[in-house]
Amino acid sequence: MKKLSLIDSAFLMLESRETPMHVGGFNLFTLPDGVDEQEFLHGLAASMRTADALQPPFGDKLKVGRLGMMGPLYWEPDTSLDLDYHIRHSALPKPGRFRELFALVSRLHGTLLDRNRPLWETHLIEGLPDRQFAVYSKFHHAAIDGVRSMHLQQSMYSANPRERIHHSPLSMVARNRYLESLHISRPPTEAQQRNVAEMLKASFDSSGHMLGAVRKYAGAWQGKGGSLVVPWLNVPKSSINTRVDGARRFVAQSWSFDRIRAVGKAMDGTFNDAVLAMCSGALRTFLLNHGELPTQSLKSMVPVSLRREGDVDSSNAVGAISADLATNIKDPLQRFRAIKASMEAGKAMFQDMSPEEASLFLQLIQLPGLLLIPMGLGSRFPPYSTVISNVPGPRQPMYWNGARLEGIYPASIVTEGIALNITLVTYDKQVDFGIMACRRSLPQVQRFIDYLEDSLVELEEAAGICRAETAKPAKAGTGGAKAGARPTAKAKAKASVKAKTRRPAPVQPRAKAAPAARAKSKARAKAGAQKPKLNAIPRLKPKAGAKVVPKSRARP
Amino acid sequence: MKKLSLIDSAFLMLESRETPMHVGGFNLFTLPDGVDEQEFLHGLAASMRTADALQPPFGDKLKVGRLGMMGPLYWEPDTSLDLDYHIRHSALPKPGRFRELFALVSRLHGTLLDRNRPLWETHLIEGLPDRQFAVYSKFHHAAIDGVRSMHLQQSMYSANPRERIHHSPLSMVARNRYLESLHISRPPTEAQQRNVAEMLKASFDSSGHMLGAVRKYAGAWQGKGGSLVVPWLNVPKSSINTRVDGARRFVAQSWSFDRIRAVGKAMDGTFNDAVLAMCSGALRTFLLNHGELPTQSLKSMVPVSLRREGDVDSSNAVGAISADLATNIKDPLQRFRAIKASMEAGKAMFQDMSPEEASLFLQLIQLPGLLLIPMGLGSRFPPYSTVISNVPGPRQPMYWNGARLEGIYPASIVTEGIALNITLVTYDKQVDFGIMACRRSLPQVQRFIDYLEDSLVELEEAAGICRAETAKPAKAGTGGAKAGARPTAKAKAKASVKAKTRRPAPVQPRAKAAPAARAKSKARAKAGAQKPKLNAIPRLKPKAGAKVVPKSRARP
Repeated sequence: MKKLSLIDSAFLMLESRETPMHVGGFNLFTLPDGVDEQEFLHGLAASMRTADALQPPFGDKLKVGRLGMMGPLYWEPDTSLDLDYHIRHSALPKPGRFRELFALVSRLHGTLLDRNRPLWETHLIEGLPDRQFAVYSKFHHAAIDGVRSMHLQQSMYSANPRERIHHSPLSMVARNRYLESLHISRPPTEAQQRNVAEMLKASFDSSGHMLGAVRKYAGAWQGKGGSLVVPWLNVPKSSINTRVDGARRFVAQSWSFDRIRAVGKAMDGTFNDAVLAMCSGALRTFLLNHGELPTQSLKSMVPVSLRREGDVDSSNAVGAISADLATNIKDPLQRFRAIKASMEAGKAMFQDMSPEEASLFLQLIQLPGLLLIPMGLGSRFPPYSTVISNVPGPRQPMYWNGARLEGIYPASIVTEGIALNITLVTYDKQVDFGIMACRRSLPQVQRFIDYLEDSLVELEEAAGICRAETAKPAKAGTGGAKAGARPTAKAKAKASVKAKTRRPAPVQPRAKAAPAARAKSKARAKAGAQKPKLNAIPRLKPKAGAKVVPKSRARP
Repeated sequence: MKKLSLIDSAFLMLESRETPMHVGGFNLFTLPDGVDEQEFLHGLAASMRTADALQPPFGDKLKVGRLGMMGPLYWEPDTSLDLDYHIRHSALPKPGRFRELFALVSRLHGTLLDRNRPLWETHLIEGLPDRQFAVYSKFHHAAIDGVRSMHLQQSMYSANPRERIHHSPLSMVARNRYLESLHISRPPTEAQQRNVAEMLKASFDSSGHMLGAVRKYAGAWQGKGGSLVVPWLNVPKSSINTRVDGARRFVAQSWSFDRIRAVGKAMDGTFNDAVLAMCSGALRTFLLNHGELPTQSLKSMVPVSLRREGDVDSSNAVGAISADLATNIKDPLQRFRAIKASMEAGKAMFQDMSPEEASLFLQLIQLPGLLLIPMGLGSRFPPYSTVISNVPGPRQPMYWNGARLEGIYPASIVTEGIALNITLVTYDKQVDFGIMACRRSLPQVQRFIDYLEDSLVELEEAAGICRAETAKPAKAGTGGAKAGARPTAKAKAKASVKAKTRRPAPVQPRAKAAPAARAKSKARAKAGAQKPKLNAIPRLKPKAGAKVVPKSRARP
C-alpha cells in the first residue's frame, strides 16, 4: 500500500461528474502493409492484456482511509485485475471521418473512471478509412501527467518499423526496457520519486531565493510586478470562464513544427512563445466573433515540468507559470512581445531557486485556487482564463509493432471556471494540438482549428516569413471529407493571404512526410539540434541531477 | 418547474458512480428491404432530433433546491437543449456479434448520465451482420419506469410495416397520437398523475384493509406469515449479495412465450410463476456450480405496477412483492408450488386494498431499505437476493419506419447488495430477457443464459410437457457465431433431454416467426386470450378507474 502525494490526491478530491480529472488522448496509426485489420488489432489488444506485473499504480486501485476522501488516500494492488475491462475494442459509425472520431473521443472523455479499479482505460478504435486506426486512452491525473504519458508512449513504440513488442506499455518489463534504452543505470529511488514538496515539508530551509520569489509574487498582486502575471489578478470573464457540465467537445489538428518554430525565431522568442501567440490570436478571433472580447487580456496557465531526469515513474511533477496572452493587443508583433515578456518574468521567478524550492513555491501558489473548487467558487474566481500546455513527444517517426504512428493528440481536463484546455504534443516534424472544451459552454469550439491557422498566418506575415517556403499544416481536420476544403472555403479578404499557395491540407500527417524528409528528421534528431528533448529544454537553472523544465506537461 | 415525487427523487438521491440509477435496454431491428443502412439510420436520428416539444421530463433538467440533493428536487426546462448530445451514432467492432453488442451495452450502461441535461441518451448502433441494427437507450429511473418505457416504445413503433413516423417518440406529438390510438379521450389530470402516495399523505384514512395488511406483514416478521415473504427476513448471503462496483456485464436472450406459459398452465400457476421458477432453477445451478448454494432459499423482489389505466405520463408508479424463490428445493415441481404459494400470499396482502392504499403500503414497507443504502449498509443487509421484473410489451410484430423490431431487451439496475437484475419483456411471441450484473461480482453471468434454458427444460419435464411440440427458444445468444452451437455442446447426461430434438436455436427471433404464426398471434391478440395486456392482468382487485397490476415493471 502506497500513500498518494498531496497533489495526486487533489485530483481525486476535486473530481466530480462535471469535472472528470483524467487526461489522455488519441493516437492515430496506419496499419502495416498486408496485415488484416481485425487480426492486427486483436493482436495488439492481446499483448496489452498479458501483463504479469504492471507499473504502479496501473495495477492498483484506490483505497480510501478512515478519514474518507479528504483524508490520506492509498494505492493497493487490485487482486482481481480484469484487463478485459481496461482494454476495449470500439468502432466508428460510417463514414468514419475524423468528425466521428472526435465525437467518440468527446464522449469517452466525458465519463468518469470507475474508482473500484485501476484508474485507466484504453480503446482500440476501428472504422477509419485508408487503413488507419486510433487508440484512445484515459488515465486519471492522480496516476499520470503529460510527461509520464510520453514516457509510457516512448516505451510502447519503436523507431524501427520491424520491431515487435509483445508486452503491455504499462508493464514493468516495458519500463525496465525503456530505462535501459535511455542508458539510465540507476533510476531515482522511491524517496526521490516522492513528490519533492512532501520531502521538503520536514526539512525546508527558507532560503533567500524563495523569499525573493515570494516578495516578487506579492509585489505583482500590489501592481508592482511589471510583466509578471499572477493567478486571479486581472483575469477577465468570458464564455470560457463559466460553470461547466459533464460533457465535452474535442477537436484535434496537426501543424508543422518548423512553421511555428520559424515564427518564434523570427520574433526573437521561443517555440513556446510562438505557440502561445498562435493560441492568443485564435482566442482573440473567437471572442471577437462572439462579441465578447474583454478589455483586459486573457491569462493562461502554462504548466511547467518539475520532473527529474530519469524519473519515468512519478505521477505528477508539475508546476505552472501564468502567462499574459495579450488578447487585448491587435498588432500580432506587439502581442508576441507582451507574451514573451510575461513568460520571461514568470521564468525569472525561478531563476535562483533549486528545483525543490521551485516545486514547493509552485504548489504553494496553486493552493488557494484548489481550495476554491470544493467551495463551488471556481467559476466565479477563475485563476486563469485557459490552460495551454506543451508536452514534448518523440521527434522521429515511431511505430507500434509496425503500425506507423501518425499523430499524438492529447485530451486534457476542463475544470470549473476554465471551460477550454489546449494541449499540444511535438511529434516527429509536427505539432499535434488537442483542444478539449465543455460541450455546453463552447458549442463552436471546432472553429478554433481555423482560427489557429489564421492566427499562425497572421504571425508569419508580421514576422515577414514567406509562406511558400514553410511547411504546410498537417491536418487531422474536423471531418476527413472536408478537411482539405475548409481552409480555402473560408472567405478571407486579405489579398496577401489569397496570394499564397494554400494547398489543400492532407488529411493524414503521413501524406506530407516524404521518406527524404523523415531521414532528414532522423539525422537532425541524432545531432540533437533544435530538438526539444524530454526534460531538456529550456532549462531555467540547470543543476546537477535535477532540472526545472518549463513548457512540458499536460495539466489543467 | 415541477417538483419530483419522493420516489422519483429517491432514485437520484441513492445514485452513485457505483450504482447508476438508469434503466433502458437495446432493441434489435432488421433494416427494411432495399434501404441503405447509413441513410436509414441517419434518417431515424434526424427524426428523433426534430422535436419541438418533448414530453416532460425529457426536455427538462434537474434543479436542486436550496436544501441540496436531500431536499426537494425539481424539473425545469433545459433552455439550451442539445439533441445531438442525446441521440448518438455508435458502431460495433468486427465481427459485430451479439458478444460485441453486449460488451458495448455493458459499457454504456455502466456510466452516469449527466445531471446538467435531460436524463436520457439513445445510441443507434450499426455494425451488426444480416442487415440488423440495434438501438440502446438509457433513461434515469427518476424519469421513467418499465411500463412508461413500454408506452414510449408503443408510441414509437407501428404494427404496420408501411407506416412512417417522423417525430421523436419523446415528443408531445407522439404522446398525443398514442393516447388517441388507445381511445383514451381524457388522460388523467396532473393531480391524478402525481404519485398516489403523495396525494394520500394529506387525506389518508386508515382503513381496516390497510390495518389488516400491516398486521399480516408484522406477523410474517414474527414467523407467523405462512407463505408470505417479507424483505430482509431470512435473506441468505451469496456472491449475488455483495458490494458492487461501477462496471456492468449484460447478456440477453429470447425464449418462446408459449413455452413458458405452457409450464405455468401445466402446473396450475401463472406465466409469472413459471418465469420465477425458471429463474429460480438457473440461480440454483449458478450457486451450486460456485459451491455456495445457501440452505435458506433466495428471495426475489417482484415489482408491481400501480399505474392507472391511461396513465402514460407518470415516471414511477410501482411497488413490490417479495417472492420466495425456493432455491433450497431440488424438485422442480415442489419448487414451483412453493414459489406460487409465496406469490399468492404476497398478492393476498393487497386483496382488500384500494390502489391508493396498496401504493402507500408498498412505499411504506420499502422505506427502511432505501434508508440503508446511504448508510452504506445495503450490501450487509440486502432486503432481497435479486430482482425479477416482468414488463408486458407489444404482443404483435412491430415496425419502426419499416424496420422490423426483432426484440426488446431490457437493461435495469444493480444496487448495493443486489448484484443481479433479471428483467424481461414479452414481445410478439417471445419473451426477451435482459440480465444485468455487477461485472466484478458476477464475472460468469453469461452462463446464466444456459442455466435458464436448462431450468426451463427441467420444468417442462416435471410438468410432463413433450418438448417436441413446444416452440424453441428464440436466441439472442452470447455470440452470433456460436449461439446455435452452444446449447448442444453442453454435456448433459440426462437421456430424456438427449432424446429430444434440440434444433440449433436461431440467432434471430425472426427466423422462427413464420408468417402463419404471426397471423395467429395477431388473431389471438385481438381476441385478448392469454394476452398480458398493459395494465390488465392479473388484477388483484379490479376497481373502477384504477387498477393494481402485479408483475409488470422494470425496477431494481
